[in-house]
Amino acid sequence: MIVVMQKDASPKDVEHMVDRINGLGLKAHVIVGTERTVIAAVGDDRKTHKESLESGPGVAEILPILAPYKMASLEVKKEQSVIRAGSLTVGGGTVGVIAGPCSVESEEQIVQSARAVKAAGATALRGGAFKPRTSPYSFQGLKEEGLKMLAAARAETGLAVVTEVMSTEDVDLIANYADVLQIGARNMQNYRLLEAVGKIDRPVLLKRGPAATIEELLLAAEYVLNGGNPNVMLCERGIRTFENHTRFTLPLATVAYLHHKTHLPVVVDPSHGTGHTYLVPDMAVASVAAGADGLMIEVHPNPEHALSDGYQSMNFGQFDQMMRRCRKVAEALERRM
Amino acid sequence: MIVVMQKDASPKDVEHMVDRINGLGLKAHVIVGTERTVIAAVGDDRKTHKESLESGPGVAEILPILAPYKMASLEVKKEQSVIRAGSLTVGGGTVGVIAGPCSVESEEQIVQSARAVKAAGATALRGGAFKPRTSPYSFQGLKEEGLKMLAAARAETGLAVVTEVMSTEDVDLIANYADVLQIGARNMQNYRLLEAVGKIDRPVLLKRGPAATIEELLLAAEYVLNGGNPNVMLCERGIRTFENHTRFTLPLATVAYLHHKTHLPVVVDPSHGTGHTYLVPDMAVASVAAGADGLMIEVHPNPEHALSDGYQSMNFGQFDQMMRRCRKVAEALERRM
Amino acid sequence: MIVVMQKDASPKDVEHMVDRINGLGLKAHVIVGTERTVIAAVGDDRKTHKESLESGPGVAEILPILAPYKMASLEVKKEQSVIRAGSLTVGGGTVGVIAGPCSVESEEQIVQSARAVKAAGATALRGGAFKPRTSPYSFQGLKEEGLKMLAAARAETGLAVVTEVMSTEDVDLIANYADVLQIGARNMQNYRLLEAVGKIDRPVLLKRGPAATIEELLLAAEYVLNGGNPNVMLCERGIRTFENHTRFTLPLATVAYLHHKTHLPVVVDPSHGTGHTYLVPDMAVASVAAGADGLMIEVHPNPEHALSDGYQSMNFGQFDQMMRRCRKVAEALERRM
Amino acid sequence: MIVVMQKDASPKDVEHMVDRINGLGLKAHVIVGTERTVIAAVGDDRKTHKESLESGPGVAEILPILAPYKMASLEVKKEQSVIRAGSLTVGGGTVGVIAGPCSVESEEQIVQSARAVKAAGATALRGGAFKPRTSPYSFQGLKEEGLKMLAAARAETGLAVVTEVMSTEDVDLIANYADVLQIGARNMQNYRLLEAVGKIDRPVLLKRGPAATIEELLLAAEYVLNGGNPNVMLCERGIRTFENHTRFTLPLATVAYLHHKTHLPVVVDPSHGTGHTYLVPDMAVASVAAGADGLMIEVHPNPEHALSDGYQSMNFGQFDQMMRRCRKVAEALERRM
Repeated sequence: MIVVMQKDASPKDVEHMVDRINGLGLKAHVIVGTERTVIAAVGDDRKTHKESLESGPGVAEILPILAPYKMASLEVKKEQSVIRAGSLTVGGGTVGVIAGPCSVESEEQIVQSARAVKAAGATALRGGAFKPRTSPYSFQGLKEEGLKMLAAARAETGLAVVTEVMSTEDVDLIANYADVLQIGARNMQNYRLLEAVGKIDRPVLLKRGPAATIEELLLAAEYVLNGGNPNVMLCERGIRTFENHTRFTLPLATVAYLHHKTHLPVVVDPSHGTGHTYLVPDMAVASVAAGADGLMIEVHPNPEHALSDGYQSMNFGQFDQMMRRCRKVAEALERRM
Repeated sequence: MIVVMQKDASPKDVEHMVDRINGLGLKAHVIVGTERTVIAAVGDDRKTHKESLESGPGVAEILPILAPYKMASLEVKKEQSVIRAGSLTVGGGTVGVIAGPCSVESEEQIVQSARAVKAAGATALRGGAFKPRTSPYSFQGLKEEGLKMLAAARAETGLAVVTEVMSTEDVDLIANYADVLQIGARNMQNYRLLEAVGKIDRPVLLKRGPAATIEELLLAAEYVLNGGNPNVMLCERGIRTFENHTRFTLPLATVAYLHHKTHLPVVVDPSHGTGHTYLVPDMAVASVAAGADGLMIEVHPNPEHALSDGYQSMNFGQFDQMMRRCRKVAEALERRM
Repeated sequence: MIVVMQKDASPKDVEHMVDRINGLGLKAHVIVGTERTVIAAVGDDRKTHKESLESGPGVAEILPILAPYKMASLEVKKEQSVIRAGSLTVGGGTVGVIAGPCSVESEEQIVQSARAVKAAGATALRGGAFKPRTSPYSFQGLKEEGLKMLAAARAETGLAVVTEVMSTEDVDLIANYADVLQIGARNMQNYRLLEAVGKIDRPVLLKRGPAATIEELLLAAEYVLNGGNPNVMLCERGIRTFENHTRFTLPLATVAYLHHKTHLPVVVDPSHGTGHTYLVPDMAVASVAAGADGLMIEVHPNPEHALSDGYQSMNFGQFDQMMRRCRKVAEALERRM
Repeated sequence: MIVVMQKDASPKDVEHMVDRINGLGLKAHVIVGTERTVIAAVGDDRKTHKESLESGPGVAEILPILAPYKMASLEVKKEQSVIRAGSLTVGGGTVGVIAGPCSVESEEQIVQSARAVKAAGATALRGGAFKPRTSPYSFQGLKEEGLKMLAAARAETGLAVVTEVMSTEDVDLIANYADVLQIGARNMQNYRLLEAVGKIDRPVLLKRGPAATIEELLLAAEYVLNGGNPNVMLCERGIRTFENHTRFTLPLATVAYLHHKTHLPVVVDPSHGTGHTYLVPDMAVASVAAGADGLMIEVHPNPEHALSDGYQSMNFGQFDQMMRRCRKVAEALERRM
């Protein structure tokens, strides 16, 4: 880290900070500038409480140099991780496609959806059984019944099942039914839950929180990796900004940025990322072009009657059209889809 | 709700939507405009899946009219709620002051802090025993040991204890030691946890998530109220914006806005809201002036050595100075502090 | 517009608002709901001071129904506009590529750049002669000398010249040299300047301000269209958000959204949109896939020595590589590039 | 500045950057860390094109150390500037109050407003004659006629006149009538205009753009100071964030932060900062408590009939009530108002 001193910091202040830095097991180098003194602290400072140094006498600012995550870093593992779960492959030149309804509503609905998305080229089925809903008055999901329906749809189609886990006490139950456990955006920093899925042998799809920095996303992944589970997919699903013509703002530069920082594959969810069905196809195609290793798409037999997220769900025909365009772009860029 | 039709929607589209609206138990009124037709749907639509109607044929947009929360609404309960927990009163003209270190680090540290903040006028003690930390490599809190130290500090000073609960499985344990359970910003939409604290008989301090709208905050409170616990304090602690000179942006208009929408009292946390010790006092004074019913402030015997959040913690002398200024403003505005 | 009354609005309040609405030449329809009354005002309210009605007695909120722009609207002109300026075509299935250095630095630099970008497939040359710089101490551009160098580069290569105009007093001068006048992001709401370029016979490239909503962007275009100049290209160049790993956040959903709202073509600038050279290629490819009608890219013979924006400029080889990938995607989607 | 090298940067890369830094007239210090090498560049780098170094071989990041502004800096001028213009004093313990309608609509309206705000304690009159409006179809102001009406109101009441200048060609005209020239938020980075008002002998009120960082605001002020005009007041009027219950988010921490960085006084505009009349009073009181050197408030004889911004304007009675509360807080904090 770099400790920037205030312009009027005294030599005693500088000396004090040098002692503090050395006391943390780092090595201090003092550089006297024309206007300010800075102190470079050499060593791995990831486990020191470095931010508190900002309260030191005469300190203006602390500038970190090292990324705070390690296991997720491309500097630690050079080749991109490829995640496999049954029918689903994400990464390594293959674009996985996870599609299905927001919520599991009935066995007929989920099996019918599974068949349709598989026919159009999806490689995994999504569907929520435990639903985090903004309002306590909204449909909360079919819970274990929903998980059984997902399993039935898998039995029918062979598609791997991706479903959300909201709480530590459900991890084992859901792991019994699902191929991939999804951590939703609202739970990205639910550290107990991250620790819990760090201990199971199912891949994890970790969605970025709408106000999370990339560093926070990678540190959330680090909780899972650090717990012993190396199979983490990151998912960009849009961030909160001042834009109000879309429900979230979908920043596709995340994909390229993450590919420069981490070996973990990156999935994009243009359904949540835009919040309107008519914007999903162009953003799905753009996601593939931006280098996404996977797509996550909401598809419903009849969006107008969906119990959740109908406004951003595609019907079967729309999804099929979208997949055709995505595949053309994937092929043009020499990737499999 | 108002259903805005597209400019080129057909009479059949309008008819279809009228049927859908009536089918939801609402009553449709069609208004033919010069450029567009809109359909007003009269009735309580809080439990209908109204957003999915956006997928209807010829629909341009759905505009909600009713706030989606009920129990938190000032329209339902007209007088402001006053929350009491031991030494702490929040609301009804009394500004409660919850102060103490970010983390409990030792019995000496927490007892010393409790004495100092009480002497300066604080009416409750804060201190984290279970700590949600962005990095898995950071100090994670002393857990039950920390709770015991908090209880010791209460025994010593009489101050009510406010501490964070991160997971459903800890609710009972923490409720055994604490007077108020805090739901942290990262868990504002951890609905299982909200349901769990909805069932206990301790007041809840609910922090706004850094990307949460006010509506989402009130719906999170609604989960707790709906669970049976009427004692919820809302806490504004800053939002994520493009500003980078402060760690978060602290929007004090939240206080006045909430006072127009809800009977629940509003606490402000200028420590997290600014992220730098030197900005905390002015924003604490401003919070009182803006009408805050409570303050939450990080105070540490020696911020430079704090195991967490030292950069935004005040030392005892700074806190005392700040309290003097806050009290003057409270008195000028005829409020107790 | 829809006027939403407060829950406790009196019949007299409603009557007052009905009179106000009728007085504005609109027609009021009262809808009495279970919890609130709303008043629909039928008619074209674009030129009324409707927002001030919010101050009326018993009014809770004003919800607009009609988009405030007209000439830019797809509802007014159904076919997409195609903009042509010399060698540059933008829209109608053709992806125009405007490339070149941030600033014109010397004749050699700009002519060399023009040759290189043309060879790689660019169809217009960019280069700043009048530079809006955040700091008064930064290089401010070569002014008219720079314009002459741009003209020389056009004479040499045949590429149309796109350059920025910062002030009304320079409009004529720049129109003498340039084929397209660019309004920079900082000037998107400089209405005098918009009026001035509304009166010339050169196409205008209008960049979105980093905090502008799409509605504000279209209203800024409306100033130009309303002034008599129908040739406006909109340019998405990134918005200000909390993200700090990119200089701006580039929201590609803007492209699809604008294609649903306006006939004006949409250019994307991934150089400013990301702010880092290594992120530009993937976002350029993604922009084409998202349906962009044009690209604007910073290219410099030696980015490390650029007098401005070197950190986001590509060198000639990088640009050529990027163009190859973009073309493959354009072809896959049956567009010309 | 600090140049952070990539983990795998070669010794040759480091050597190259050292040469580049020394070539810029700075002095390079190489610090070899455990994971990365960083190079500290000592010297005043404000006029170097340092960002372009990011394109150098093996460079990961450039971290600035020195603030890019000088004349606005508290490090250059230690005492707070006090701005005086006729009846208005801003700074030095005096809270100036600039109040009046958004637009000048008639002589009666502006004179009546001037009398009322003066009676309530305002020390300057605001009123727009040249209005920047988002839509070309909105009322654009009375122009010179409006300026004459402002002058009439000053003659009547003695209040100094603050009014906006939108374009370089109007600077002299407006300076003939006004005591303070306001640069609106949309023009904060209209550098030609900043240069123009840098050459006149009237104080300037510079409003922060809704997406401007504090550094950009201070650099905009630097344009004016650098032009020769030392009398600049900064004005916080709210930023664009995801919040939608207020028209902008008003971050009062700006006041304290600016007081730590610059000698220029800080005015707060809670009318634009909240966008709703009912939120203005609490935020005005909070602004005074936060240390604001001035307030800017929209007041209209009849907000419901205002030609602009009626939704955020107070009537005379509301303004008078608000002033009483503000004065109590100012007195409690030993400031004049």
